[in-house]
Amino acid sequence: MRAFLILTGLVLFLEVPVSADEGMWLLNAPPRQLLQQRHGFTLDDAWIERAMKASVRFNNGGSGGFVSADGLVVTNHHIAAGTLSKLSSRDRNLLRDGFLARSRRQELRCPDLELNVLQEIVDVTREVNQAIAPNLTDAQAAAARRAVIARLEKESTERTGLRSDVVTLYQGGLYHLYRYKKYTDVRLVFAPEEQIASFGGDVDNFEYPRQSLDVAFFRVYDKDKPLRVEHYFPWSSQGPAEGELVFVTGHPGTTNRQDTLAMLRHRRDHTLPYTLARLRYLEAQYLQFAARGPDEQRMASRELHRVANARKAFSGQYQGLLDPALLSEKEKAENAFRKKVAANQDLQRKTGEAWKRIAAAHQSLAGFERLYYLLERGDGFDSELFVIARHLVRLAAELPRPSAERLREYGDARLDSLKFQLFSPAPIHAELERLRLAGALSFLAEQLGGDNVHVRAALAGKSPANRAAELVAGTKLFDVAERKRLAEGGQKALETSEDTLIVLARSLEAESRAVRKRYEEEVEEPVRQAMGQIAQARFALLGTDVAPDATFTLRLAFGIVKGYEVDGVALPYTTRFADAYERAERLGHREPFTVPKSWLQGKADRQTPFNFVSTADTIGGNSGSPVLNRAGQLVGVNFDRNRHGLVRNFVYTDVQARHISVHSRAVLEALRKFYNAEGLANELLGK
Amino acid sequence: MRAFLILTGLVLFLEVPVSADEGMWLLNAPPRQLLQQRHGFTLDDAWIERAMKASVRFNNGGSGGFVSADGLVVTNHHIAAGTLSKLSSRDRNLLRDGFLARSRRQELRCPDLELNVLQEIVDVTREVNQAIAPNLTDAQAAAARRAVIARLEKESTERTGLRSDVVTLYQGGLYHLYRYKKYTDVRLVFAPEEQIASFGGDVDNFEYPRQSLDVAFFRVYDKDKPLRVEHYFPWSSQGPAEGELVFVTGHPGTTNRQDTLAMLRHRRDHTLPYTLARLRYLEAQYLQFAARGPDEQRMASRELHRVANARKAFSGQYQGLLDPALLSEKEKAENAFRKKVAANQDLQRKTGEAWKRIAAAHQSLAGFERLYYLLERGDGFDSELFVIARHLVRLAAELPRPSAERLREYGDARLDSLKFQLFSPAPIHAELERLRLAGALSFLAEQLGGDNVHVRAALAGKSPANRAAELVAGTKLFDVAERKRLAEGGQKALETSEDTLIVLARSLEAESRAVRKRYEEEVEEPVRQAMGQIAQARFALLGTDVAPDATFTLRLAFGIVKGYEVDGVALPYTTRFADAYERAERLGHREPFTVPKSWLQGKADRQTPFNFVSTADTIGGNSGSPVLNRAGQLVGVNFDRNRHGLVRNFVYTDVQARHISVHSRAVLEALRKFYNAEGLANELLGK
Repeated sequence: MRAFLILTGLVLFLEVPVSADEGMWLLNAPPRQLLQQRHGFTLDDAWIERAMKASVRFNNGGSGGFVSADGLVVTNHHIAAGTLSKLSSRDRNLLRDGFLARSRRQELRCPDLELNVLQEIVDVTREVNQAIAPNLTDAQAAAARRAVIARLEKESTERTGLRSDVVTLYQGGLYHLYRYKKYTDVRLVFAPEEQIASFGGDVDNFEYPRQSLDVAFFRVYDKDKPLRVEHYFPWSSQGPAEGELVFVTGHPGTTNRQDTLAMLRHRRDHTLPYTLARLRYLEAQYLQFAARGPDEQRMASRELHRVANARKAFSGQYQGLLDPALLSEKEKAENAFRKKVAANQDLQRKTGEAWKRIAAAHQSLAGFERLYYLLERGDGFDSELFVIARHLVRLAAELPRPSAERLREYGDARLDSLKFQLFSPAPIHAELERLRLAGALSFLAEQLGGDNVHVRAALAGKSPANRAAELVAGTKLFDVAERKRLAEGGQKALETSEDTLIVLARSLEAESRAVRKRYEEEVEEPVRQAMGQIAQARFALLGTDVAPDATFTLRLAFGIVKGYEVDGVALPYTTRFADAYERAERLGHREPFTVPKSWLQGKADRQTPFNFVSTADTIGGNSGSPVLNRAGQLVGVNFDRNRHGLVRNFVYTDVQARHISVHSRAVLEALRKFYNAEGLANELLGK
Repeated sequence: MRAFLILTGLVLFLEVPVSADEGMWLLNAPPRQLLQQRHGFTLDDAWIERAMKASVRFNNGGSGGFVSADGLVVTNHHIAAGTLSKLSSRDRNLLRDGFLARSRRQELRCPDLELNVLQEIVDVTREVNQAIAPNLTDAQAAAARRAVIARLEKESTERTGLRSDVVTLYQGGLYHLYRYKKYTDVRLVFAPEEQIASFGGDVDNFEYPRQSLDVAFFRVYDKDKPLRVEHYFPWSSQGPAEGELVFVTGHPGTTNRQDTLAMLRHRRDHTLPYTLARLRYLEAQYLQFAARGPDEQRMASRELHRVANARKAFSGQYQGLLDPALLSEKEKAENAFRKKVAANQDLQRKTGEAWKRIAAAHQSLAGFERLYYLLERGDGFDSELFVIARHLVRLAAELPRPSAERLREYGDARLDSLKFQLFSPAPIHAELERLRLAGALSFLAEQLGGDNVHVRAALAGKSPANRAAELVAGTKLFDVAERKRLAEGGQKALETSEDTLIVLARSLEAESRAVRKRYEEEVEEPVRQAMGQIAQARFALLGTDVAPDATFTLRLAFGIVKGYEVDGVALPYTTRFADAYERAERLGHREPFTVPKSWLQGKADRQTPFNFVSTADTIGGNSGSPVLNRAGQLVGVNFDRNRHGLVRNFVYTDVQARHISVHSRAVLEALRKFYNAEGLANELLGK
């Protein structure tokens, strides 16, 4: 564990306009001027339109892009992994063995994969803000805001037939309505063996140099035919050159660069310690389960990767926030900005109290944050079936209300996507459910104490293991038909159900909703108002040249393909196939450093560039993002950051921080020489 | 994760005299009557004397026994593992490859292994209690108790030349002085490959059926010659029969069966959640380090096993305490006993307040327990070098004081053992030290918050990783000569040293000592007094037929060799060599289920009994315990409990709970057929 962060040369932006290549830019406010000035590149409307309509959001938390006119989509193997697991069984292990459809008929339909493609963005800031009359209490304001957003989404969906989401930008500075085409018939075309897709496994995660073929291909179908798409990214047979300008389109999940000092401190002292404690118990739980044998390994594999990845990412965040240099720079910047605000009477009147309100909201949050996570986020009942049970209970209670008054996730505009997940035929493993529930019930007790009222209620007089066994034995929610039956039965069916998990979810409703209400009214709403004020002050004083924090919506980033130095050693901008073979040899062909048979038997050019790095600004959620050249050709598929990039949640730096991509040539060479997939390679090249 | 505990049939003893085969008995108060009544066995003085003088305590936390007249000692491989690691290097991996000395000259001297052999026990309860005048404050009483104990130990050491420890029994009910012969020239004779010593690894730990050759042999030397011993356990070539009475001698570490309800609740809601959180971060840290490559695997292996084992043991404890059935039984028993006390005026006057005092002490402890662990136990600075640095700083401060006034571990009677560890030439890996320190500093911050004064002082304005790198780069304590130089330099040398770790340890002294003082005066002393009162009441009302809780001192347990049922499946009392081969085959020869080359090439009788179980009462610390038959022959080497036995910290049960041993025949057969170690086998058989 070497230093995560070298602050020398860090670029800290709370108040100064952007320099370097920072920014996850909105597609309707692209950095045209910056690109012109810094890189002499003219970003035209056609380029932007393709970037928007050829980029794909994987609703399970990743990015991708269309790469042929026939609806072919590329993403990361690790974004496909959940689907690969769901398509696997004891006799067919797609994660381990990979998959190639040799004809369209062989393409495998995915049980619950939803892809979204952005079509349009509309600024609705004014509509949202006008709905919040002055002098409302926080509770009233929260309700009014929820209502106007639900109304805007519903109207848009009804009018356009498109999935419509109102997105909060600058944590309350702007509200934009995003309209997406939504695809749910998605089929698996190709995935390599997990061995090479995540060569180096957890050891190499967030590290560079890297040797991973972290790609997978799907095809979108419409009415049982491959979707014809107008906009897609042509595959580059050359890939990027050193020093070249590249672009990344994708859906970065969350950043906290505009968080106030009080928010960062809260994150450091409350949110992250809890999060790390939780991730550690989960990782230990899955590791121990997976070690029991190959079946358990297959069942737990997806969760294990997800948790291990989160553990590294959040550890990196925590290390960053523990570095006094980072926080003291943030403090300086915040103080300087507040001084500017104070110097302007009008701004000071509108914004002066914002920082205090945010600090007060977080002080309040500290008192119930764990309870909020354990009950309302469901951390204390972690299991797939509990999530289903809760949705069924809530759907029945929410649907009779007008859409605008429901909990956000049950608004009309969201129902289709929710039901698609809820009624997914993907297998759920009883053994894993028992494990997860027992672990979560223990964690609940660890966090709240054995005599806590919620803990006693959850355990119902039993030990966690016995209670989990009882809950899983007494539920029929494994069966999709039973879920549909309950959903159709409405409130009456849910109120009288004796299904163990429905009973549990029902028993938690009052307390869970109460703590959610507290969260929304005491934290979310006042913070949103205060952040909105700060954003307005920033626009007034500094203009709009700072991109908003990430929100898992489409963004455009750009950067330069280049290597970097660590401890005086220069790391090249690209690795080669040969490096994987060499490392496997040097580390004794031990997991996770083994090369699959296909790579040992096939004859490829071992000098083929494999992975490469650039300075573009990415974060979790960008996994699977197309990396494009000036011509809009796909030169790579982003799959990771290095560890120096972990701090990018809080600050952009390009001294050593890089995102890491699979080189477009590596994919072509591997498809041809290792997987005998000439057809797929030809489709990529438009042949 | 199935149920840990089936309470039906549990035997809960807070107030009733012992039945079944419960008890870790004192060698000077052996259960003669019980053995006579229940098993028709006459425990005579000669049997006891051999059990005492042939049993060996491994000071690193295990048990063993002499098994030849030439000072040969058997213990577990996992008790030897630390030593095997210290004797290993990049070119000689004793953990992986095992070891056999083919002649005495080849036996390998261990760098810092100390063995103790108990010679005599003296009851000093009256001396200790008389030194505590009535009406002392808790602080005065704690000091007086520390002083009298140090004096008794010192006088005993000076008079007998033996290592002398005063042991607190019944948590304050009795004080016994234990006198040991101490051996520090200990040499490695034999260890199998870790693969077969811990076949099934963490998956199988605390599970049965089991297939592990968890044994190792050492030889004690005296003046460079094998020690001639009068008392040793003859090795049985037959092993135990089903239904046979067996005995276990050894050093069980800690049980909590006599804890009051308040203590158990405190353990459940404070001590264990903290402990589990800590073990999880440590395990994740070592797992990730070990995955980097074979060298890292070797360096971290010992710590990894230790931590994984503790994680399972403490998780089992926690699950037990979360089971409402256990605590409600404890509550009933405590209430019934308190009623009896209340009915007796004299006892009520002496003891009536004891439970309240204990509860109050633990309420106070809850406020500073983490700080105590982080600062004084050193959890926040976890590293081998920090331990050394602190000892050097404290030795310099303590030595000028009279022995009776020093911190307990620096009393004259303990100095030799301490220095033996402190000046050990065992290698310390800088990479591992950096890892551990960075992890511990992060954990310190997670527990106390980033702005906490101790955290800020510890980090000294740097991130945990950078601070750890700085601390390790700036210390010379890797060098034994430097440690000696500092120790010899006394207070002046330590006060002026600029060694980074000495400076750190020095800076923590005031706060660490303060929190220790609080612990000793606000918790340890009042609890000891109150537990002493409760013990006296128990003696008065129920006699002395309940053995004291475990204290890592020599105890005698007994039980019956027999299998048990799980979910209606009968598990046999013994496994066979064949079972290991079959499981390896069935689980695809994946780690941790692989059989070493020696076992694949050698030809042994695959029907040889391998591991067996009995109902005797054991706990952690019993690892390596000799298992004896009526004749005092060694029929097995205890190495584990099953998961049903994890709850034995709090209650004895023999429905399913068992301890697990290597069968004496398995050792003989393996030595001959797999390791070509006929000489060693012959020595065991006295040939």
